[in-house]
Amino acid sequence: MKPWQDKLRVLDPYVPGEQSKEKNIIKLNANENPYPPSPKVEDAIKTLDFSKLNLYPDALSSELIETLATHHKVDKNQVFVGNGSDEVIAFCYMAFFNSVKPIVFPDITYSFYPVWCRLFNVPFKTKALDSNFKILAADYYEENGGIILPNPNAPTGIGEGKDFIADILEHNQDVIVIIDEAYVDFGGYSAIELLEKYENLVIVHTFSKSRSLAGLRIGSAIANPQLISLLNSVKNSFNSYTMDSIAMLVGTASIKDNEYFEANAKNIIQTREIFAKNLKDLGFTVYPSQTNFLLVSHPKIEANEIFRACKEQNIYIRYFNLPRIDNCLRITVGTDSEMNTLKDFLKKYIKDTV
Amino acid sequence: MKPWQDKLRVLDPYVPGEQSKEKNIIKLNANENPYPPSPKVEDAIKTLDFSKLNLYPDALSSELIETLATHHKVDKNQVFVGNGSDEVIAFCYMAFFNSVKPIVFPDITYSFYPVWCRLFNVPFKTKALDSNFKILAADYYEENGGIILPNPNAPTGIGEGKDFIADILEHNQDVIVIIDEAYVDFGGYSAIELLEKYENLVIVHTFSKSRSLAGLRIGSAIANPQLISLLNSVKNSFNSYTMDSIAMLVGTASIKDNEYFEANAKNIIQTREIFAKNLKDLGFTVYPSQTNFLLVSHPKIEANEIFRACKEQNIYIRYFNLPRIDNCLRITVGTDSEMNTLKDFLKKYIKDTV
Repeated sequence: MKPWQDKLRVLDPYVPGEQSKEKNIIKLNANENPYPPSPKVEDAIKTLDFSKLNLYPDALSSELIETLATHHKVDKNQVFVGNGSDEVIAFCYMAFFNSVKPIVFPDITYSFYPVWCRLFNVPFKTKALDSNFKILAADYYEENGGIILPNPNAPTGIGEGKDFIADILEHNQDVIVIIDEAYVDFGGYSAIELLEKYENLVIVHTFSKSRSLAGLRIGSAIANPQLISLLNSVKNSFNSYTMDSIAMLVGTASIKDNEYFEANAKNIIQTREIFAKNLKDLGFTVYPSQTNFLLVSHPKIEANEIFRACKEQNIYIRYFNLPRIDNCLRITVGTDSEMNTLKDFLKKYIKDTV
Repeated sequence: MKPWQDKLRVLDPYVPGEQSKEKNIIKLNANENPYPPSPKVEDAIKTLDFSKLNLYPDALSSELIETLATHHKVDKNQVFVGNGSDEVIAFCYMAFFNSVKPIVFPDITYSFYPVWCRLFNVPFKTKALDSNFKILAADYYEENGGIILPNPNAPTGIGEGKDFIADILEHNQDVIVIIDEAYVDFGGYSAIELLEKYENLVIVHTFSKSRSLAGLRIGSAIANPQLISLLNSVKNSFNSYTMDSIAMLVGTASIKDNEYFEANAKNIIQTREIFAKNLKDLGFTVYPSQTNFLLVSHPKIEANEIFRACKEQNIYIRYFNLPRIDNCLRITVGTDSEMNTLKDFLKKYIKDTV
């Protein structure tokens, strides 16, 4: 060991869904939206004054924040934006999870949650989903240092309603409760209405799924003004300008085109329901999804075998080599045509294999 | 106090140079480049396929990293990129400054350095610049947990050469030494050639100054592959996709247009030297600058008075209400025309005031 090496930090980072430079793949492994963003995004970029890129962006992200506040019918001092919802959640950990007691989240959930715990030295405990992969509210009644829950959950796709979230909040009024609503726009319940009653609630959203803007890194948090102000302090202690000028321009244009957004989400929900039925017809177990993906398993063929067979066909889906879900596959909802290609392949594959 | 409030973190963040929405200001307060980015940047954005913004960016930033590696004549596994050099430095703190011993930096320097220390609980010590605002290498010989030095320094503008940096490295082989070269392209010395000899050296660059891309948030680090790999682990434990697709496209196009870059830097250096002479003729003390700004003071008029008088003329310069430099002003080098307007105003103002 060299003398300077003992000051280094070794971490076990998050691994995102595989990217491929191949052109002809059907990419159903990263929960991306299969459709392009609103055409208003392209229009907005066309108005960009390139000669002004020499200037720092608006560090307050005022226009994007005001547009989001109007959209969600909250005050602008209740909104925070960041470089993707991952950055927003990382800032939430730094701002809100400062207790010696462990924070709590499900055993099967977004696998970045424990990674942030390790990065920021936040103690944590996980609570097992039940045998139907549902979160049990009562597991979250005991004393803790904070809670982070995705609703709908990922990679299960299962969502909970108002009573469930309110119940968790009612039993956790002494800590910050983060509800990660990354997938909420595909038929889930948003807890925004609960912000008025619960000052300790933080809601996180992303532009990467329902807004087709994974390429641009935009996320947001909605909470009471004191919590938003602390998030800004963390952000301004980390990087004064996390959002670039183009991302803010694009994000604003996207939020303003509500019609496109709603039609897009509706479209994906329809495709999801048809594809879920098709998979059930092929013998798959399909968990009920309120997201843009389906968690599925087949009673007769191992998940990683199906994963490999699909990959050979240039169809990328997601396999997690993790306890309890190592016989499941997470399939992003793509276009109707992509899902039909996958369905036709699976039909033939199952017939040939079983 | 409400029960959930004791888990919150209260910080004292960095405050960047004031932004204004007014159109007719001469903005010399944030060390922005007064010229637009390379026209190749606009060409690159015109090739953008908007229909692909639904996809996550390349998490490895391969094209930008390869382009930077070629430009700096280093291996691609020696390059890391991030969402502005502030993010890159924040990751460096997390990856490299993990000692109970204090890290060391000058008392007058980039005021974000102590902010990151507070955010990440890194102990620190400052060393006073000498009476000419120069860093004394011998101050950095004692035992420490790491070193961060800007070269050239900011807000002094003063740069040091090879022997100075090598001397610091020679005396600090048991810790990581970060040289923050944010302003190096305006006539400073880059320590890239020292990377081969010193495995504990990390060099940080930004696209916000010499590349006229403050609006897009791009920074980089160059170091030995082991250190780059640890930076990637921190990044992937924080946010898998810190760089968006457009920023990477733009950054790559900018690096490839070396001719524009060099002409731009040369132009700013020329303007700086002419303006420095003009200020000296007006009785100002002007510190020798290797950056795109000048640190100046006037023997007869207080700095904050000059600051206010300029602001009334819609000329924004930077005043720091901080020990030792509270009678100095930091003036960014703008266009020739902007500097002439400022010079003419100062000439009249000094005549009327003294």
